[in-house]
Amino acid sequence: MTHLPYGGIATFARAPIVHPAAEWRADVAALGVPFDIALGFRPGARFAPRALREASLRSVPPFTGLDGVTRLAGVTFADAGDVVLPSLEPELARQRITEAARLVRERCRLPVFLGGDHSVTYPILRAYADVPELHVVQLDAHLDFTDTRNDTRYSNSSPFRRACEEMENLVHITTIGLRGLRFDPEAVAAARARGHALIPMTDVAGDLTRVLERLPRGKNVYLSVDVDSFDPSVIPGTSSPEPDGLTYAQGMAILAETARHNTVVGLDVVELAPSLDPTGRSELLMARLIMETLCEAGLDGDRHA
Amino acid sequence: MTHLPYGGIATFARAPIVHPAAEWRADVAALGVPFDIALGFRPGARFAPRALREASLRSVPPFTGLDGVTRLAGVTFADAGDVVLPSLEPELARQRITEAARLVRERCRLPVFLGGDHSVTYPILRAYADVPELHVVQLDAHLDFTDTRNDTRYSNSSPFRRACEEMENLVHITTIGLRGLRFDPEAVAAARARGHALIPMTDVAGDLTRVLERLPRGKNVYLSVDVDSFDPSVIPGTSSPEPDGLTYAQGMAILAETARHNTVVGLDVVELAPSLDPTGRSELLMARLIMETLCEAGLDGDRHA
Amino acid sequence: MTHLPYGGIATFARAPIVHPAAEWRADVAALGVPFDIALGFRPGARFAPRALREASLRSVPPFTGLDGVTRLAGVTFADAGDVVLPSLEPELARQRITEAARLVRERCRLPVFLGGDHSVTYPILRAYADVPELHVVQLDAHLDFTDTRNDTRYSNSSPFRRACEEMENLVHITTIGLRGLRFDPEAVAAARARGHALIPMTDVAGDLTRVLERLPRGKNVYLSVDVDSFDPSVIPGTSSPEPDGLTYAQGMAILAETARHNTVVGLDVVELAPSLDPTGRSELLMARLIMETLCEAGLDGDRHA
Amino acid sequence: MTHLPYGGIATFARAPIVHPAAEWRADVAALGVPFDIALGFRPGARFAPRALREASLRSVPPFTGLDGVTRLAGVTFADAGDVVLPSLEPELARQRITEAARLVRERCRLPVFLGGDHSVTYPILRAYADVPELHVVQLDAHLDFTDTRNDTRYSNSSPFRRACEEMENLVHITTIGLRGLRFDPEAVAAARARGHALIPMTDVAGDLTRVLERLPRGKNVYLSVDVDSFDPSVIPGTSSPEPDGLTYAQGMAILAETARHNTVVGLDVVELAPSLDPTGRSELLMARLIMETLCEAGLDGDRHA
Amino acid sequence: MTHLPYGGIATFARAPIVHPAAEWRADVAALGVPFDIALGFRPGARFAPRALREASLRSVPPFTGLDGVTRLAGVTFADAGDVVLPSLEPELARQRITEAARLVRERCRLPVFLGGDHSVTYPILRAYADVPELHVVQLDAHLDFTDTRNDTRYSNSSPFRRACEEMENLVHITTIGLRGLRFDPEAVAAARARGHALIPMTDVAGDLTRVLERLPRGKNVYLSVDVDSFDPSVIPGTSSPEPDGLTYAQGMAILAETARHNTVVGLDVVELAPSLDPTGRSELLMARLIMETLCEAGLDGDRHA
Amino acid sequence: MTHLPYGGIATFARAPIVHPAAEWRADVAALGVPFDIALGFRPGARFAPRALREASLRSVPPFTGLDGVTRLAGVTFADAGDVVLPSLEPELARQRITEAARLVRERCRLPVFLGGDHSVTYPILRAYADVPELHVVQLDAHLDFTDTRNDTRYSNSSPFRRACEEMENLVHITTIGLRGLRFDPEAVAAARARGHALIPMTDVAGDLTRVLERLPRGKNVYLSVDVDSFDPSVIPGTSSPEPDGLTYAQGMAILAETARHNTVVGLDVVELAPSLDPTGRSELLMARLIMETLCEAGLDGDRHA
Repeated sequence: MTHLPYGGIATFARAPIVHPAAEWRADVAALGVPFDIALGFRPGARFAPRALREASLRSVPPFTGLDGVTRLAGVTFADAGDVVLPSLEPELARQRITEAARLVRERCRLPVFLGGDHSVTYPILRAYADVPELHVVQLDAHLDFTDTRNDTRYSNSSPFRRACEEMENLVHITTIGLRGLRFDPEAVAAARARGHALIPMTDVAGDLTRVLERLPRGKNVYLSVDVDSFDPSVIPGTSSPEPDGLTYAQGMAILAETARHNTVVGLDVVELAPSLDPTGRSELLMARLIMETLCEAGLDGDRHA
Repeated sequence: MTHLPYGGIATFARAPIVHPAAEWRADVAALGVPFDIALGFRPGARFAPRALREASLRSVPPFTGLDGVTRLAGVTFADAGDVVLPSLEPELARQRITEAARLVRERCRLPVFLGGDHSVTYPILRAYADVPELHVVQLDAHLDFTDTRNDTRYSNSSPFRRACEEMENLVHITTIGLRGLRFDPEAVAAARARGHALIPMTDVAGDLTRVLERLPRGKNVYLSVDVDSFDPSVIPGTSSPEPDGLTYAQGMAILAETARHNTVVGLDVVELAPSLDPTGRSELLMARLIMETLCEAGLDGDRHA
Repeated sequence: MTHLPYGGIATFARAPIVHPAAEWRADVAALGVPFDIALGFRPGARFAPRALREASLRSVPPFTGLDGVTRLAGVTFADAGDVVLPSLEPELARQRITEAARLVRERCRLPVFLGGDHSVTYPILRAYADVPELHVVQLDAHLDFTDTRNDTRYSNSSPFRRACEEMENLVHITTIGLRGLRFDPEAVAAARARGHALIPMTDVAGDLTRVLERLPRGKNVYLSVDVDSFDPSVIPGTSSPEPDGLTYAQGMAILAETARHNTVVGLDVVELAPSLDPTGRSELLMARLIMETLCEAGLDGDRHA
Repeated sequence: MTHLPYGGIATFARAPIVHPAAEWRADVAALGVPFDIALGFRPGARFAPRALREASLRSVPPFTGLDGVTRLAGVTFADAGDVVLPSLEPELARQRITEAARLVRERCRLPVFLGGDHSVTYPILRAYADVPELHVVQLDAHLDFTDTRNDTRYSNSSPFRRACEEMENLVHITTIGLRGLRFDPEAVAAARARGHALIPMTDVAGDLTRVLERLPRGKNVYLSVDVDSFDPSVIPGTSSPEPDGLTYAQGMAILAETARHNTVVGLDVVELAPSLDPTGRSELLMARLIMETLCEAGLDGDRHA
Repeated sequence: MTHLPYGGIATFARAPIVHPAAEWRADVAALGVPFDIALGFRPGARFAPRALREASLRSVPPFTGLDGVTRLAGVTFADAGDVVLPSLEPELARQRITEAARLVRERCRLPVFLGGDHSVTYPILRAYADVPELHVVQLDAHLDFTDTRNDTRYSNSSPFRRACEEMENLVHITTIGLRGLRFDPEAVAAARARGHALIPMTDVAGDLTRVLERLPRGKNVYLSVDVDSFDPSVIPGTSSPEPDGLTYAQGMAILAETARHNTVVGLDVVELAPSLDPTGRSELLMARLIMETLCEAGLDGDRHA
Repeated sequence: MTHLPYGGIATFARAPIVHPAAEWRADVAALGVPFDIALGFRPGARFAPRALREASLRSVPPFTGLDGVTRLAGVTFADAGDVVLPSLEPELARQRITEAARLVRERCRLPVFLGGDHSVTYPILRAYADVPELHVVQLDAHLDFTDTRNDTRYSNSSPFRRACEEMENLVHITTIGLRGLRFDPEAVAAARARGHALIPMTDVAGDLTRVLERLPRGKNVYLSVDVDSFDPSVIPGTSSPEPDGLTYAQGMAILAETARHNTVVGLDVVELAPSLDPTGRSELLMARLIMETLCEAGLDGDRHA
């Protein structure tokens, strides 16, 4: 097997390809969701699953750090390919996403979903309807809890609203990195009414430790990483950049802390638009972010508490 | 008024802005349709209406040629802006497109529709349901007469199929520039059964004069220009390039011949993806193509016969 | 009116278009100055007015923040288009800029000038010759107070020198963000002789609060934002990047503090070169910066003191 | 299986992945050779195998033409991945390429080699040392028969020289598309001394039919397509563009004629540098060229004679 | 001396650097004129002299063709660097250009001027005021004979008008490649009144031989190559592309015929904007065009007649 | 001499061109090493020497700071061009690099080497075999002390391993900026066994002052700057970006501190890939970094202690 990132067929972390519905088992499985017609500005997230797979080839586990500790050794990976999506038909697309996510969940310990725009998180979450007391930790510049935007209830502004309406087990969301000039007051009120934690970016910049303390502990957590939570200088490849975002280290600290102290049941990376970043670093860094998060998820047996 | 293409607010040909439903009259009116979620490969046509407006500022009429003849003098223009589109909801989008197209048609002699992907031609054509014996002349590498593709009947492969199903007055389509490895046999058969003229690119390259002779004469004609009819070296900014396409001169000859010998009731330019052509020539040439077609459409009173 | 940033004709904040010399009134009016032949390195700022208009469509007021406070509600906007500029003739260009700036100033409370290279600030400032005790707060990596550079007195290195020579009412300039290897000793001495505040970037990085304390209070202030004051990782789209510049938050803090404690009589954003930043974030962030500054300028009646 | 070109893991023509040395059979098998350190100007061909695989997803067989004829139905494909290459060590790289090419040859009827720069054709050809009376048809702007260039005998200027020295069975080369200001006189003389056909581009432009008549008939032919044989307007993505090259149709005519009248034993596409063509058409067209050549190679049983 | 185009300091054809006013002699000397503030659309030609120098390193003479003939052997080259230009001051810039052009002319047989926008040809031509019966052969999509445009008499639309006004010895201009929607009727009339040959692109496409017959013979000819004379697919890197332009071969045929049958006293290449063509072929092809023209200019002693 | 960065032939800091082996003397001399075939991911560093020369024209000494102090006045510069490299032959390339580096070292006080990938530092260091107790200060995200990677001992992962094996006088290396998921345990152990200082990026971010205290003092120091030591948002133009890297100020502080307290015997800047950063800031900032380092190297007589 080659070690050159540009060599070989690009599967996630050089994992074997599996069909979601086939017989297979893995600790970690990637599923691509190349769907980006629900965003309202600059498309391109449909190309992110493939870009993340290619970028993952610079970060193939296991990893031995400068400290000599080896991580993700013995952890098995699979690549379940992409959800087979229709053109244009959003309702059908959502069904297919939920179904594929369910199949992958049943076959691995930790599914990694490669979006797509943020609207895909709603049909993905539907595959978690059986998880008791599901928590979400969402890195995001935007709340994405809007009821209706531009005449649709299924845009990338609404995934968590739809999921919360439908899933009684989705008990709490922690949204970190909020900033921007404009919020939907109804959405903010609705999220607060449900008791969600809305943590603005200024809190992260001001005192990261206190933010870390507000994260859930001992829960079943789904991690949703909207790459626009990061500063546009860190991740330029996204539809809707907002200034003064997370550094890589801040984002990673939040993900690591969450992963160490909870059971991560799923992880998505969304809103990555590779063609908007000709330097290529957006996908390289986000592929590494996934790997580092996996390193903290207790997959190698020594779960942190 | 500035003559610098980069100066001033970019309306089509520096025309005044009008609301489709307001009181106004013009010989020519532009309407943008920034809709591109029905294509199956590389998005970006949503940015084409704005790009074509900017590019039109290098080609603002009237035009005096090297021969001293002035064209489009006294012809009035309006810019009706863009159709106000929802996010994601295709059925609603089609309704809005049809409605806006109808309003613009009622207020001008020749509407110019700035797409968008080719799926928009179907809802636009619905605004022509009252035109007796409507003909379409379509420049295209692809037939776009497919019944269903990727689980949808409304993709950019199907606009003319849907229009023909619904509009009895749409009596004939001449499709010019066909090429490519793969055709949908059912679509080809269906188009042929309706008597459509399917003219492959090899015919254009072989004997353009004979192709021109096959164009309709004395009809009400809607012109639909898919920019992928042109060779990718001429117009690189498109989702699905096919080699060995039209030169600008060939495309212009077909449009001019059609315009001179028929009544042009509408014109669209679709599938232009500006961000795929960093040289910027794709929109510059297509804006000029629109203007040259208008020059031949008999708008200045001396209709050709 | 559409809410999709890529939809519709791009005027500043979707404001109505007005001719500078016509009858109109607005709280805020934008005037583009697409002039970039006075810079000495990488051109492209001529495309900035249009890019900023497009980018402003992601930030159309009013804005309701996460705190529930709504800002810029009821504030009226107009877009006065671009100054009609000649090709090549710098003296005539400066006359036209001054004249248009004067017309816009007379018709609105706060003009926003969309440059252009920094040389345009001189002819713009001439439209403020009647303002008593005019102060300037300038965000800039460079001093721009040079007498002559490369055989010209009107380059983008000299706007404030020329303005100070000509305008007795221009009593003080605070320049923030200075850095770089090379300064013109004569210019530094001349600025210091006039009592200008020359605040290097290291001061901002060291203690922002003390920098904020050095800002004017209770004055008539013209804000001039050279985008190269920002770190190149924040705003890559500029001719002459200098490392270790302002974060967005630092720049915004200075502008907000100035706006809250003074009467802002004008605002320009200059040296933005959209084509040098293929990620598109430079114009998106600078359009938002303008909006946030307007939010702090007391336009909605509750002026801060 | 998805039909969206951006969906799914990109193998050549969506073929199953095989290891070169495993047990498998296919009519056609792709092998990538991501090696580009032997070229002397603009690198990037190392990224071509992956780009060609992605591009192939727009051209997955079988193909039904406008004429209703279906091609490549029932023909089986495999993707043997990329040769596992060392960094830097050219001799070892050549050994690995020869070995992998041999394994693939043994398992399929027609191997398709995805370069890489043109130097890879030498080690690939070594895998054909057993083919009686091997002919090569080479589309190329350059002769690539130089003995030594820039102190090396293994650059992309020398592959055919090395192959001819070593392989007695390589009896003839037809090189088509030659042009450019500069030729190595020694190389020209050596090629002519061996009886090679050196066909300049002017011959193709002048009378394609006569060029087609000069192609071999009834031979075992290896096809080597240097993408710089094409006009740079057709295929901009290459290290060393030369003006006035092949149109797609001309190149395809030569390949089709060769394939119809000979036994094609192998095909390579080399010198494609995807990052030099941001429009993406270079790989899209070259992937299609491969497919069209396969259509003519008699793989579906009805071999032409 | 390296043969790698990316190696070494880029002087034109690896020639020694000379100061225009120093003591030196050469057959051919290059002089860069990085001035582009007189064009009215997309700047960037200021970067062309450097880009052409770099590109020339792929085409360093002498050249041995496929026919075995060696050209430009023994011809000496010098690189006189760039004219030292002021910022912004057009009148001073023109003086400096004329002066430098004069110095270079005195020291070499054939100066090659690397523009710059087309306005530079006027001050360059002033350095030829002593040449008896000077003819110009101009490859151009546009006439560039306009009296005034956008309030200036010195834009890139006027160089030949200004030169003809001032230089009695400039007796004739042949302009080839004219096309486009719009011509300035006054300019056309003025050029015709002086007896200039205005040859539209359609004539070149129709019958190149007849165009070649209309070229001057036995004259002192200055060649001015506006790269927008070429088709935008051939040379995308230019401010104002016009469709249906020259192929490289057509342009080269005109230049070769002119060079063979006249005394070429100077050559310029203008309006090349490298940053508008990310494929890099625009400068590579234009550098080669210069070299091929030199090959035909009789510099190696065997002047054609 | 022009002051416009885009004007004139680009030598380093506008220095005169010298041949390495000729008779010349200078305080500072630049030598380009356009070699990038030893890296394992994205090539392009071969274009860095030329890009750094161009970028240096914005930072030509002497420099007068805002503090009025003038630096590098009277310091003489030379540009020794690029090492004349073979194609492909790594061993020969290394010989040529060592030889040229030696020649340049003998003729100047401080050579500046413009890479190239990091593998070039090994043959450069060989030119320092006579320096007593040579120290290296290396800014780098990676250790580059690996014995063998991908079947080669001479990749850009191994330069310091090879140098240490061969050069007894290379007594110590301080590597600063280390980060990343994966380290080669054998390399880490080997470096530690030799007593090298391995300073992770977290140390720099945590307490820069303590890092500065760990730098050598009073030694002969060779500075090796791998641009991937910087954060990818600061320097996007590099093959292998790693998040959370140095700010410009941090990197400069380390270089300045080292230069002030030691004798700098050489400086290289490697792994810069200009084509990966279309904003152009990577080379502009790295050229300035070189100049600022030179400012601190005591070249103007007042060595710091």
